[in-house]
Amino acid sequence: MTLWEDGPVSSLDPAVAARLKRDPAGLVPAVVQDAGTHAVLMVGWMDDEALHRTLTTGRGTYWSRSRQEYWVKGETSGHVQHVREVRLDCDGDTLLVVVDQEGPACHTGATTCFDADRLL
Amino acid sequence: MTLWEDGPVSSLDPAVAARLKRDPAGLVPAVVQDAGTHAVLMVGWMDDEALHRTLTTGRGTYWSRSRQEYWVKGETSGHVQHVREVRLDCDGDTLLVVVDQEGPACHTGATTCFDADRLL
Repeated sequence: MTLWEDGPVSSLDPAVAARLKRDPAGLVPAVVQDAGTHAVLMVGWMDDEALHRTLTTGRGTYWSRSRQEYWVKGETSGHVQHVREVRLDCDGDTLLVVVDQEGPACHTGATTCFDADRLL
Repeated sequence: MTLWEDGPVSSLDPAVAARLKRDPAGLVPAVVQDAGTHAVLMVGWMDDEALHRTLTTGRGTYWSRSRQEYWVKGETSGHVQHVREVRLDCDGDTLLVVVDQEGPACHTGATTCFDADRLL
């Protein structure tokens, strides 16, 4: 049984958990899209518990691979994500999270995390 | 020196390669968005060589984690992606690929890979 930092196994709906195909670290990428502009804002990472918290609290919640902890988008910046839709892809290995984003989505202050570096 | 299946190291622009932050498998997720509808179509995975091929051929080209080989979207289905933009995110660990998609993007025949399974 996996133990999480704040309790026992994730209480993610077992029917959803059974469809998730996680990477070796137990994560899936979550593509975050703005409900209004349809801009792709950012990509975060979710394990079962981050997905459970996102679905039940309606706030975009992710697992930080660098800090190895959960983070709620906007918890420090105030740039909260109000979650409108969550979709799982055909392979079960990627999530699409459609949000109403308060303020800029990027920690740099840019509207999206993809604004600064165009390769083509 | 890494050897690729079809030759020596990837010829990806070293200035771009230096900004890429790859996962332990050498990959980054590539979010594919439709240039016209702005729908998020799919997520593929790219290593340096897949990114190089995408940038130089203008066709969405990915690394298959299950088959361990490169694949060009539409090579068998005809549902080709004409690449319009490629952007790297603020952390250097995710790509956004904006495409003109011919036909459905999903192998199931759905317009996008996120059409079938809504969790919220």
